[in-house]
Amino acid sequence: MGAPLPQKNESQHTPWLYDIDPDDTNWIITSSFMIFTMQTGFGMLESGCVSIKNEVNIMMKNVVDIVLGGLTYWIFGFAFSFGRSPLSNSFISFGDFFTDPSLKDPLKGAIYAAFIFQLSFATTATTIVSGAMAERCNFKAYCIFSFFNTAIYCIPAGWMWGEQGFLKKLGAVDIAGSGAVHLIGGSSALASAVMLGPRLGRYDNGIKSLPLGNPVNAVMGLFVLWWGWLAFNSGSTYGLSGEKWHYAARAAVMTMMSSFGGGTTSLLYSLIKLNGKIDTIDIINGILGSLVGVTAGCFLYQAWEALLIGCIGALLACLFMPLFDKLGIDDPVGASAVHGVGGIWGVLAVGIFAQDPYPLRTTSGRSGLLRGGGWYLLGVQSLACVCLSAWGLVSSMILLWTINKFVTIRMEVHVELLGADLTEHFVRHGNVGVSRAISTLGPVLDTAKVINLDNVGTNPMHEKNLNVVKNLSRKKRYRFSKILKDITRNRNLGINIVGNLLPKKARKSTAKEANGDRKEKETQIAWVN
Amino acid sequence: MGAPLPQKNESQHTPWLYDIDPDDTNWIITSSFMIFTMQTGFGMLESGCVSIKNEVNIMMKNVVDIVLGGLTYWIFGFAFSFGRSPLSNSFISFGDFFTDPSLKDPLKGAIYAAFIFQLSFATTATTIVSGAMAERCNFKAYCIFSFFNTAIYCIPAGWMWGEQGFLKKLGAVDIAGSGAVHLIGGSSALASAVMLGPRLGRYDNGIKSLPLGNPVNAVMGLFVLWWGWLAFNSGSTYGLSGEKWHYAARAAVMTMMSSFGGGTTSLLYSLIKLNGKIDTIDIINGILGSLVGVTAGCFLYQAWEALLIGCIGALLACLFMPLFDKLGIDDPVGASAVHGVGGIWGVLAVGIFAQDPYPLRTTSGRSGLLRGGGWYLLGVQSLACVCLSAWGLVSSMILLWTINKFVTIRMEVHVELLGADLTEHFVRHGNVGVSRAISTLGPVLDTAKVINLDNVGTNPMHEKNLNVVKNLSRKKRYRFSKILKDITRNRNLGINIVGNLLPKKARKSTAKEANGDRKEKETQIAWVN
Amino acid sequence: MGAPLPQKNESQHTPWLYDIDPDDTNWIITSSFMIFTMQTGFGMLESGCVSIKNEVNIMMKNVVDIVLGGLTYWIFGFAFSFGRSPLSNSFISFGDFFTDPSLKDPLKGAIYAAFIFQLSFATTATTIVSGAMAERCNFKAYCIFSFFNTAIYCIPAGWMWGEQGFLKKLGAVDIAGSGAVHLIGGSSALASAVMLGPRLGRYDNGIKSLPLGNPVNAVMGLFVLWWGWLAFNSGSTYGLSGEKWHYAARAAVMTMMSSFGGGTTSLLYSLIKLNGKIDTIDIINGILGSLVGVTAGCFLYQAWEALLIGCIGALLACLFMPLFDKLGIDDPVGASAVHGVGGIWGVLAVGIFAQDPYPLRTTSGRSGLLRGGGWYLLGVQSLACVCLSAWGLVSSMILLWTINKFVTIRMEVHVELLGADLTEHFVRHGNVGVSRAISTLGPVLDTAKVINLDNVGTNPMHEKNLNVVKNLSRKKRYRFSKILKDITRNRNLGINIVGNLLPKKARKSTAKEANGDRKEKETQIAWVN
Repeated sequence: MGAPLPQKNESQHTPWLYDIDPDDTNWIITSSFMIFTMQTGFGMLESGCVSIKNEVNIMMKNVVDIVLGGLTYWIFGFAFSFGRSPLSNSFISFGDFFTDPSLKDPLKGAIYAAFIFQLSFATTATTIVSGAMAERCNFKAYCIFSFFNTAIYCIPAGWMWGEQGFLKKLGAVDIAGSGAVHLIGGSSALASAVMLGPRLGRYDNGIKSLPLGNPVNAVMGLFVLWWGWLAFNSGSTYGLSGEKWHYAARAAVMTMMSSFGGGTTSLLYSLIKLNGKIDTIDIINGILGSLVGVTAGCFLYQAWEALLIGCIGALLACLFMPLFDKLGIDDPVGASAVHGVGGIWGVLAVGIFAQDPYPLRTTSGRSGLLRGGGWYLLGVQSLACVCLSAWGLVSSMILLWTINKFVTIRMEVHVELLGADLTEHFVRHGNVGVSRAISTLGPVLDTAKVINLDNVGTNPMHEKNLNVVKNLSRKKRYRFSKILKDITRNRNLGINIVGNLLPKKARKSTAKEANGDRKEKETQIAWVN
Repeated sequence: MGAPLPQKNESQHTPWLYDIDPDDTNWIITSSFMIFTMQTGFGMLESGCVSIKNEVNIMMKNVVDIVLGGLTYWIFGFAFSFGRSPLSNSFISFGDFFTDPSLKDPLKGAIYAAFIFQLSFATTATTIVSGAMAERCNFKAYCIFSFFNTAIYCIPAGWMWGEQGFLKKLGAVDIAGSGAVHLIGGSSALASAVMLGPRLGRYDNGIKSLPLGNPVNAVMGLFVLWWGWLAFNSGSTYGLSGEKWHYAARAAVMTMMSSFGGGTTSLLYSLIKLNGKIDTIDIINGILGSLVGVTAGCFLYQAWEALLIGCIGALLACLFMPLFDKLGIDDPVGASAVHGVGGIWGVLAVGIFAQDPYPLRTTSGRSGLLRGGGWYLLGVQSLACVCLSAWGLVSSMILLWTINKFVTIRMEVHVELLGADLTEHFVRHGNVGVSRAISTLGPVLDTAKVINLDNVGTNPMHEKNLNVVKNLSRKKRYRFSKILKDITRNRNLGINIVGNLLPKKARKSTAKEANGDRKEKETQIAWVN
Repeated sequence: MGAPLPQKNESQHTPWLYDIDPDDTNWIITSSFMIFTMQTGFGMLESGCVSIKNEVNIMMKNVVDIVLGGLTYWIFGFAFSFGRSPLSNSFISFGDFFTDPSLKDPLKGAIYAAFIFQLSFATTATTIVSGAMAERCNFKAYCIFSFFNTAIYCIPAGWMWGEQGFLKKLGAVDIAGSGAVHLIGGSSALASAVMLGPRLGRYDNGIKSLPLGNPVNAVMGLFVLWWGWLAFNSGSTYGLSGEKWHYAARAAVMTMMSSFGGGTTSLLYSLIKLNGKIDTIDIINGILGSLVGVTAGCFLYQAWEALLIGCIGALLACLFMPLFDKLGIDDPVGASAVHGVGGIWGVLAVGIFAQDPYPLRTTSGRSGLLRGGGWYLLGVQSLACVCLSAWGLVSSMILLWTINKFVTIRMEVHVELLGADLTEHFVRHGNVGVSRAISTLGPVLDTAKVINLDNVGTNPMHEKNLNVVKNLSRKKRYRFSKILKDITRNRNLGINIVGNLLPKKARKSTAKEANGDRKEKETQIAWVN
């Protein structure tokens, strides 16, 4: 999202979004591809955090986010942020709906490159909220939410990044989206968590976290997000030509520095809180909080500042998670604290620490408070925080409220008890209480469709064959090859069918071979040599 | 696979493959690296789809695909597709076997870049088939198949992309390989599924899918494939210089658009089919089907067309999966439907919708039927479909038939019942029926080598030590530090050995510390503060 | 780590590290981002190899490696390798501590780009050792080790790559770090394994490997490392301008060729060793060993040589794993064999096979023994091996010895028996013997804090609600909606709270909807249509 170099001729007015140097296209497109990998990270993090009986459901919700969120970004999202038409104003843009330049459009390459880049940002923003709604949001209601959620992101993204956005005009700075991506995502997450209410029995034993479903997957998700974040922040120079590459490299270094500060802080926080032990989710969310914190001004800081920003971002994430729980706001993955509170910190940090990245026009020549730039930038950044968080909260609440009129957004109680994997996707997990839930709810519920489902990973049909073996092997003089034949008599192997097309002699031996029926396999066979 | 710009001087005849602008090398090499990540995606998707007792086996088969498939691509694969020698003809190329240009070859850079790029395509193509053979193909037969499978891909890839390929000469268009990669892979998958026959008991309960082994991993695999696909399609412009970057960006956008269409379609399909529920495998394969569909003409479409192509690709994948099952063709991951049927659709779609991407020569100036290009392109594309699918089916059948003469391609029955993880890799999973299979087959089989194997993830040796603790702790006046000493008496800690090299005084304290034998640890200790 | 092109003007003396052509920045930065993904690979590989009760612990150690290792790389690591000050000498550099160029520094872009690139190497090197210390290293001791481990890597990296390093001056060649990264990491791993001693009961049943915790994750880790390795080796040309792209492409091809050789060799090795079966860990470590082997001279070989180097690298890894076990050195993931022995082979291979990559100055114009370059290069490479492995072993031992004076590096026995996931992170796994360990150790240990922990993935609070349902459903005339109300009476749904702000009429219906309390849900409901 870097601004163009100052020497650009503005007379013919190409919006900065389409003002792409061909040398920069490699950077822009490659960055967008790497940013998409963050979807894998979100999916693994979220599915690793929820209880096992909902892990598939949350993955499917992530898929829906991309599919429906992407579709609507094409239909109206890009238009609301960057649309070119006389109707566009400081608060919302219009034009370029169903983005689809013709091959004759001289800007076609720029529009496609801008679209794929912005799309990678949009899908990231809209995925943030899915974690906060985990384990209790009705799947169909979630699909509807995903479809319209794009508008919640795109309108304020236009305020911040659009040619005519009022925050941009005031001079607000948000390079890679602590505000437009994370604060919007986080406040939307908070609103969703409030609207849905806590999971059934969530606070029966105090605010202690529920056990994670798969902590290894959750940490893996952190890793994938971490490396994707490098492209996210560094790619936001929107090119490497001129001196942009200085700042792209700086953004990468500061992103890592911030995560080092955040990681160290959350380690210390956890060691103190748990008397020498480490809480996985604190470390994950501390590091993510530090990454969110550095995002808005990723190439505006010195290393010390990035480190400090990371420390504070992590601490805020770690402290606000239990705070929200104390308020009865149940956010299973902590998205509100990480992206919401971390996002506010990220936007404000620009107002405090930012240097003017000459010759880039990113800050319009302004500096932060501690850099002698006075209070203006901090003031504008604070205004941005207020506008973005108010928008995120209110628009999400209105959207969910409206959806709830048509489809109840909260899962029904029995769905919550049985787990959405079973009820929505017919996936039955073993050893996590699903069978007990089915049998308990049996008398009051029609469970016919799921009571006989087999557990994931098992192969139920083999039982029958094992029984055949058992019965046959009881007989006195069995021969193993005969038992095999009994089992496999009707196997419809292609190799046999093809064999029947051959002359008779060839046929016989083929069929035998195909059935694994060679001579040496009589009676007791030493199958593991 | 984009054709060179028209202004290129063809007099000295550098094949397009080696006609690389140095500015394009970054794009070509980076794309190939990202395409290789699709192997991770295939591995996770396939291992997530099979039953748990075969999940390691399928991962090992994916490793074998890369290793042996890559080796043979170097030996003869590259030669059959792109070899430069007078023997090369429209149907097969020769030359450049054991590709290995010397440092004096002025084309060395171009040859290496072309080879790594083509290699990333080849490994993708040859991996497709592994899913269709899952859970019942003998491991050694599979290794042999992998070794020769390269030829099945490389010969038709030469038809389509080689300098003298007959389909290329006729004007067939297949930018990133809906035909040469996916249709070949998919028809080969279909042939393999037919030849191997269905898994034991597969259709005993009708055609309903067996439970997935790890649905989260399967969806993760989809994600990794999805982002890799962007590089796969976009990288096929084979550079960004000139106007190529316009089309590279367009390819990325259309790839996503198609997946949005595919995702939406498969969501609707699943909701209707399951009366409001969502089947994970339908969504996965629907999206993959849409990606396969857009691949052949990824930068030849407008957004609406890409969306529509995705919808149809997804629908075909979703409909053909149960259709193949009804025909008794058991393809555990649905590769035949996704890559085979989807591939045909992808190749035909070019003939229907393609625009001439001026100034690129990709379509030789031709357009599709609905673009006013007449029937020629659609005719050629149809011919390509017939040739490729016939080749894929017949050559795979002949190959498997031949292998079966030497090593039975079908697993033996007891291996299938016990699971290939146990029998091929000595990996024993708990809670999925393996123990029951071992005990049932015990009387008829020599199970000595596996009956005492410990389950994955457990630490069997700790049992013994726990028994020591148990016995010692029964005694009246135990001291915990004494029990510890009993267990650890013979621990061969390096830190102690190093200690013995020190002067006597230092030695003593070190040994104590090393054994965790500090003073405060007497009797009952509060180990969790 | 490629040397600059010869035509560079050396008069103003910009160190090669900062002598970056703007055209090369894309390559350098993108490569570093891809190299960071290798951390995901290491994490998955290591957590897949250890027993389940330690899988989260090893992931957290990987996080700590990045965070603390990265922090210290910034503080002193970069300074020790590449610091610019008069104090720098052939054995250690000084200067550029707390790397942080100001915006006025004309080299700022180059310093940032160099730092992020070198940082990606440093985190890889320091992560290697974590696997060797798995399952028995105290977590806090490990954190301290991670903090100082950077020095163990950075000092010899300066010998090899620093402007004044004595090995560099002698002409030692180590393009992407078989020596400076892998041999240092591997010898450090060996030292750590020796110092910590074997896991409790490790060799009670001979040297047979313990069961892997999650073989699918381990193979996935191999995949992620494999593709990251392409960027690792190929990126080490440090650019694509001039003829560098020829060698970058060559590095990628040779990296793959070596892995094909390694994969084939380890397949054959395993087939022979296990009489026709395949050992997962042999394949994984064989391929990794071949990748380590080709790293030092990745673009100095012909394809045949790379293949052979891979074969030997894999064989060494496969043979040294059991050898170390026979010596009583317990390295759970085989890092000593893969990175240590493989690293020695990689450094020596340059001396044997290297070609002079004209016009690059990588080998200072020298060639390997078999290329007619005489014994000099092989001699220098051997010297490098001796220096690097001696340094890695001795410095690691001293560091661990010192740490052990303050925090016992070995886990306490009861921690090992219970698993570090439980004791360090309060993560309780089911079905892997944790409950038995808790109950056995109960009499001698205060287990109050963990005995009531719930298993990962379960939702303990649902039990209570299921009991409510059970009791209510026993009553004669129950209505399901009434039972639901009983359970959800006190649910604090935001949608209800918002409802209270509405006029009375709207309020009522909203509350009902939110509780899923629609009319059609009376008595027995068909919840799965």
